[in-house]
Order: sequence, then C-alpha cells, then structure tokens
Amino acid sequence: MATEYLYGRWPVLESLRAGRRTFQQLLIAEGVDEKGVVEAVLALAQERGVNVRRVPRRVVDDLADNANHQGVTMRVGGYPYVDLDAILRTSAERGELPFLLVLDLLKDPQNVGALLRVADSVGVHGVILQERRGVDVTPAVVSASSGAVEHLNVAVVTNLVSAMRRLKEEGVWLVGMDIGPDAVTPDEVDLKRPIALVMGSEGEGLRRLVRETCDLRLTLPMRGHVQSLNVATAGAIALYAAWQARGWEGWKRPQA
Amino acid sequence: MATEYLYGRWPVLESLRAGRRTFQQLLIAEGVDEKGVVEAVLALAQERGVNVRRVPRRVVDDLADNANHQGVTMRVGGYPYVDLDAILRTSAERGELPFLLVLDLLKDPQNVGALLRVADSVGVHGVILQERRGVDVTPAVVSASSGAVEHLNVAVVTNLVSAMRRLKEEGVWLVGMDIGPDAVTPDEVDLKRPIALVMGSEGEGLRRLVRETCDLRLTLPMRGHVQSLNVATAGAIALYAAWQARGWEGWKRPQA
Repeated sequence: MATEYLYGRWPVLESLRAGRRTFQQLLIAEGVDEKGVVEAVLALAQERGVNVRRVPRRVVDDLADNANHQGVTMRVGGYPYVDLDAILRTSAERGELPFLLVLDLLKDPQNVGALLRVADSVGVHGVILQERRGVDVTPAVVSASSGAVEHLNVAVVTNLVSAMRRLKEEGVWLVGMDIGPDAVTPDEVDLKRPIALVMGSEGEGLRRLVRETCDLRLTLPMRGHVQSLNVATAGAIALYAAWQARGWEGWKRPQA
Repeated sequence: MATEYLYGRWPVLESLRAGRRTFQQLLIAEGVDEKGVVEAVLALAQERGVNVRRVPRRVVDDLADNANHQGVTMRVGGYPYVDLDAILRTSAERGELPFLLVLDLLKDPQNVGALLRVADSVGVHGVILQERRGVDVTPAVVSASSGAVEHLNVAVVTNLVSAMRRLKEEGVWLVGMDIGPDAVTPDEVDLKRPIALVMGSEGEGLRRLVRETCDLRLTLPMRGHVQSLNVATAGAIALYAAWQARGWEGWKRPQA
C-alpha cells in the first residue's frame, strides 16, 4: 500500500477522526505548542494506537514538501477510494436522491480541495474523478479541503464517460457546468432530482464527449469585466443551489 | 503618490483596460513569448503611452516579490480608491437598488481577491474595507482577483461601523454573514432590496459591534464533517443568491 505524509493540524485531525486509513506514525515538530487542535490530534492518535515522535522542524519541512504543515505531519496508508456502487449505496442507505460531484481533469489541487470541502458541506454521496490525467487525492488536496475529503466517498474511474453512462442507467441526471447560449441558470431548472454535477477543468472546461454525455448544461450569469469565475467558486455556487433545491436535506439547524 | 508593482498577465491587462491608475513602466521578462495576453498587454501599453522595457527575469522576480508574475510586471500609481458617495452614486446612475459588499478585517489577500472577483461578476456597486487593520488593495489582492478589482469601486473607511450607519440612513439593509441560531438562510429572506453584504474575518467572523449593527444575519447551512466554509466561498454563494433575487439584473445572456 502506498505511503504518504498528510500535513497540517486540521487535515491530520480529520483523517484520524474519519479513521479510514492505516495510521503509521505521527510526527510533531519540536517546539510546537501542544494545545488546542494539536492536543486533540495527540489524544486521538493515542486512542488509535499511533506511534508519536517529536522531531526537528526541518524533518517535518522535508516530509511535507515545505508546505504549510503547522508542525504536524502523519505517515499514513493511501487514500481509501471507493467504487461507484458504494456511492450509489450511500444515497440509497440515506434514503436520498443521488447527489454526486464529477470532476473532469481538474489540475489544481487547491481547486479540487476547495470543491471537496464544499461537497462535504452539502452532503454529496460521492465524488468521481478521472484516473491519471487529473489530480487525485494527494496530501495537498487533503490539506486544501481542510481534511473534509477524509470523510467523503471518492471513486477514481478509468473512463469518466463510461461512469457517466452508468449513472444515467441508474436514473441520475448529468448536469454539466458550462457557458454558452444553450446553458440554463440554476433558477430555470428543477435541481431536486437525482443529479451529478459535472465540472470541467480550469481554462478548458468540459471535454467534448463529457459535455455531450451531459443531460443539461448549467451556467452562472456574469456581468463583470472579468468574464470568468474560478472553477471552485462556480462549483460551490452550483452545489449550494442544488442542495437548496433539496430543501437543505440533512441539515441540523443550530438551536438557540 | 504611492508606487507599486502589479504582476501577472491578466492583472496587468485589466489594469490597463480599466485605465484608472497612472502607468509608469511595463517590464517584460526576456524570453517571454509575446503572444496572446502579453501581446494584448503590449498593444494597450503602447496605446496608453506606457514606457516598455525588456529586463532579465530575475529583475521581474524581485519586483514581483517572487510571486507568480508570468514574466509581466508594471510600475503603477496607487489603487484609485473612491468614497462611499461615489459608490451610492454608481447605484443611482445605474438605476439599481444599492448592492454593496463590506469586508470586516479579512486577513488573507487570496480570500479578499477571490471575493472581489465575484463582486465584479455580480455587478456590486462598490466594496467597503476597514482601513489599516485589514487587507487593502495590494498587488497580491489585484492578482488574486484576476485583475477584477481594477474595475471596481473600493472605498477604505476609518470606521466601518460609522460607514454602516451611514448606509442605513441611505436605506441600505445590512446583511451580516454569520452562524448561529438566529441567522436565516438565503431562501428565508427577500434579498431583492438595497443591501450591503457584510463578511467577517477568517476564523473570528464579524466583530461584535459590526454584528450588532447588521439588520439581519444570514447563514449557509452545512451538513458535513468539517463545520465551516472558507470565507470567500461563503461570500460567493451569498453574493450569487442576492443577485439571483434581483433577477440577474444587468446580465447579457449569450446569444446563439
């Protein structure tokens, strides 16, 4: 099994909370104030029987590729991908209309992580990524998602269009984020049905076959001088529009 | 007047397009392929009579603080801030209900830039920032907004609460993004009225007096494991909800 180094306080904490990986060793930089989130990390690591070491900060720098690790890194087994069936089962088990996110070859780990964080917020049943050519769930993606992806169902498929056709057979409606005159705005369509929101890559958008496989193209109006939205921003707005159409299903409103 | 170095192809191009700063010198790194956006930058610089120099890449690295400058940097006068009256005039001139964004001490230039890019997309009449303690419109913010802020009305005020009270007197309704049991969701409130959306800082949210000055607190539901949204993500969703309530006013739908 692949070994990798997660880094950052929240990402490491969420990974331990989710408990889905093998946890090999927790490394804390000497001099880190072991309170707050770090204290919670240490307590949960102990509960899970994870070996803990204090090491010089430069060791953590090296292991975390000089990213913003906040003095915390953890050697773990690879990301626990699931398959498409597991995602569909999750929606059936919850008794909810399928609600999926499909990412077509996004390149930037920051964008992928940001989208996965929002996907967790709105309770999608799973995320589908295209194998190899796009970004998969690397430690940089885990950190960019603030650890949210540790709790999500993520499937990596070798052929995105085949996976989309499979979803169609299951009655899932494929909604591609796109621009152009044939796309509709979120208020022009009923998003309260089984859907997979399909996001194209930065710059290029959806590949032709992926676009053609979609049942509908969704667009967000823009009236500014800069005629584009960041892909993670557009995806967040669309995911929230879809969840609002579902009446914020599964939300526990805070009580006074 | 303050001098600063904008960097990046799109930010420099948008600044030249907006034409609101003094433009002192355009510096292009030797070896940059002068096509596409760079070609457009050079053409517009010539039109505006801006001196152009080709310099070694390390010079651009230095001037752009080693940020991702794409071989393009431009020495310009300081950001052309406006005052609150100019913002209110813009809304009157357009014949639209006031639509403003207020940022209370945000810290991260990436978040501020991302919010300003969305603010441009939805056509807000202006943005109000608190002086000094928050982030103002630095070259990093310009780049994070993809240059959108070069076209926006931005006012910096010494006392945010006073500015908010002034807006109230003008009939503007102050909507603070917040969490907690007394906050309403975007579908529970009519956002088609004169509004200023008020966003708190990363981590701390709205300061107490700022929160108390708001007429209403708006929240976004969350059902995930990571119980927070990035401030720029939350702001983008709220800005789009408000613009949708206004029927996408000012949007030119693409024609087939």
